[in-house]
Amino acid sequence: MPEKNIQVLLAQRPMGMVKKNHFRIVHTPVPDIADGQFLVRNHYLSLDPYMRGRMSAAKSYAQSVEIGDVMVGGTVGEVAASKHPGFKTGDAVLGALGWQLYGVSDGGGIAKIEDDRIPLSAYLGVMGMPGVTAYVGLLDIGRPKAGETVVVSAASGAVGSVVGQIAKLKGCRAVGIAGGPDKCRHVREELGLDACVDYKADRLWEDLVHATPAGIDIYFDNVGGPIFDRVLNRMNPFGRIPVCGMISQYNTLKPYGVRNLRNVLIQRLKMQGFIVSDHAGRRTDALADIGRWLLEGRLKYRESITQGLENAPAAFIGLMTGKNFGKQLVKLI
Amino acid sequence: MPEKNIQVLLAQRPMGMVKKNHFRIVHTPVPDIADGQFLVRNHYLSLDPYMRGRMSAAKSYAQSVEIGDVMVGGTVGEVAASKHPGFKTGDAVLGALGWQLYGVSDGGGIAKIEDDRIPLSAYLGVMGMPGVTAYVGLLDIGRPKAGETVVVSAASGAVGSVVGQIAKLKGCRAVGIAGGPDKCRHVREELGLDACVDYKADRLWEDLVHATPAGIDIYFDNVGGPIFDRVLNRMNPFGRIPVCGMISQYNTLKPYGVRNLRNVLIQRLKMQGFIVSDHAGRRTDALADIGRWLLEGRLKYRESITQGLENAPAAFIGLMTGKNFGKQLVKLI
Repeated sequence: MPEKNIQVLLAQRPMGMVKKNHFRIVHTPVPDIADGQFLVRNHYLSLDPYMRGRMSAAKSYAQSVEIGDVMVGGTVGEVAASKHPGFKTGDAVLGALGWQLYGVSDGGGIAKIEDDRIPLSAYLGVMGMPGVTAYVGLLDIGRPKAGETVVVSAASGAVGSVVGQIAKLKGCRAVGIAGGPDKCRHVREELGLDACVDYKADRLWEDLVHATPAGIDIYFDNVGGPIFDRVLNRMNPFGRIPVCGMISQYNTLKPYGVRNLRNVLIQRLKMQGFIVSDHAGRRTDALADIGRWLLEGRLKYRESITQGLENAPAAFIGLMTGKNFGKQLVKLI
Repeated sequence: MPEKNIQVLLAQRPMGMVKKNHFRIVHTPVPDIADGQFLVRNHYLSLDPYMRGRMSAAKSYAQSVEIGDVMVGGTVGEVAASKHPGFKTGDAVLGALGWQLYGVSDGGGIAKIEDDRIPLSAYLGVMGMPGVTAYVGLLDIGRPKAGETVVVSAASGAVGSVVGQIAKLKGCRAVGIAGGPDKCRHVREELGLDACVDYKADRLWEDLVHATPAGIDIYFDNVGGPIFDRVLNRMNPFGRIPVCGMISQYNTLKPYGVRNLRNVLIQRLKMQGFIVSDHAGRRTDALADIGRWLLEGRLKYRESITQGLENAPAAFIGLMTGKNFGKQLVKLI
C-alpha cells in the first residue's frame, strides 16, 4: 500500500471569517491497525456548517477540535484492511473519520452500507445527517399541517432542500429562500417548491410577502441574522420556528441584532433550537421514509463535489458564503 | 344618584413613550341601563402592560382601542343598579369595564365574586389575569422540574411575583430580576425567592452568574431587550423561555437588537410567546391552586394603589418605567 495518508488539521482558531491558513494539510503514513480495528479508505468527505463551531473554542453543544487535530467530519468509504470480525475488506461504511484519506476504527459510530440502490455519497446528504436533520426539524418541531405555509432558508442546501420537499409531500405550500437566480430556479423547477425568494435581489420583504400570501406558519431557519429578522414580521399566529442553523452568524465577530422578536409574543410563536444528535431515536424512521421517497423519485438532491482533500479548505470557505449549490462534498477517489 | 361618570379616553396614539397627553379625562352622565343590563360602580381598575399595545394601531393579538374610546381594562366593583335577572344591587363583580367609574354590562365577560375570604382587589392581580398568566406560562410552557433554576424578570410585578413564588412551591431555585434594592429585598425577604438581581446596579451579568451557579433552566421573560439578551448567555441545554412580555420594548421606536440568539441553537432552547387568553381552559385549575395557596399563606402579593381615576394616566406611565411596586391598581372609591 504505497499511498500516503493526507490529513487536514486545524492550524489556528478563526476569529471571524474562516480562511485557508486556519487549516494545515499534512502527509502522514497510512496508519497501522491493531486487532479489533479496521482501516477505511474514505471516498467522500462531507462538509457541513456545524464544523465552523467545532473550529472555535467557544462553548457549544459539541467538543471543539483541538489545534493540530484532524478536522472532524462525516465520511463514506471502503474498508481497506481489517482485523475486526465484523468488517471485511471492501465493505462500504459510513462514519465520522474526519478530513483525511484514511481512518482507523474499532467499529464505534460506523454503519455498514449494504443497500446499493442509493449512491454512497447520498449517505452524507439526503440519506444521512442532513436528511435526518430536515426530517426531525420539520416534522417533529415544525409539525406541519396540510395547507400551511412553510418557508425554509438555504433552500437549495443539504438540509433546506429536503425540508422544502418534505413540506410539499405533506401538502404544505413550500417557499424557499436562496441566493441567486440559479439556486432559486433549481428550488422551484427541480425541487418543486411553490416559490423561491432570492435574498440577493434586494427586495427580500416584497418578494417574501408575494410568495406567502397567507403568511408563514413554519419558518425552518438555517441562516439566522437579517433574513430571520425579516421573516419574523411575516409569521402567522401560533407559528413554529425550528432553528437548525445560523450560518450568517458563524463567521462574524459582531452578531446581528434581531429587532423583531416582539412577534414571538404578539403571534405566540414557538422557536426551538435543535441538534439532530439529540433525536437519534428518530433516525431509523427518518431514513426509512427518506429512502422510500428517494427510490420512488419523490425526493431529489444535488451535490457540489470538490475533487481532492487539498481543496477541502477552499470548499468549506465557499460553503460558509453560499458558494456551494446543494450538498457540499469532497471526493477523495 | 348625583355622581357623574368619569372616563379616561384614548386621545392620541403614542409613538414611542406614552405621555399624559395621549389620554383625555371626561366627565359624562352616569349611563342608563336597559332591560337585561346592570350598572357597575367600579372599585378598582387594573393597570397592565398589555394596555400599551392596545393604544397602538399596530397589528397585535387584540383589537386596538379607537381614538376617543374609553381605555380598556380589568375592573372589580359592585352592582349599583340592575335590570338583569342574574345580578342584583350589591353583587361584587369582576369584569373588563375599562378606565371609568361606571360601566354597563349585559353580563358577558362578568364574573360574580362570592368568596369574601380574598380581598376584591386581588381578583385583578394574583387571583386574576396576572396570576393565571404566571401559572400557565411557568407550569404549562416552562414545565419546571424540582431542582431546576427559574429566573423571572420584573420579579416584583404582578406576574413576576407569582412566577417566582410558584417556582419555589415546585421545588425550584427561583431567582428574580428587579429594579432597585427595595424591590430586590422584597423579592427575597417577602416573596421568599433564593436571590434577586438588581438590574439597575450595573453588574447584571456578574450578579446573574453569582445568583445562578447551576445556570438557568427556565427564563420567564417579562421585559425583553438587553436583559433577555444577557440571560440568553446563561441558559442551560434544553432551557425553556416563556415569553410573557417585553415591557422594555413597548415604548421605544427603535427596538433593541438581540445578539445572543445563537444560544437558542447551541443550547437547544425553546422560546415560546403566549397570551393568557389562549389558555382560558386552564383558568379554573389555576385559580383553584392560587386561591388555595393564598388562603394557606403560601403565596404573597403586594399592590401599588393609586387613588383616583384622574391619576390613572400617570400611574400607567409609571408602570411602563417600573415605578410601580407590585400589582398596579387605581382605587376608585
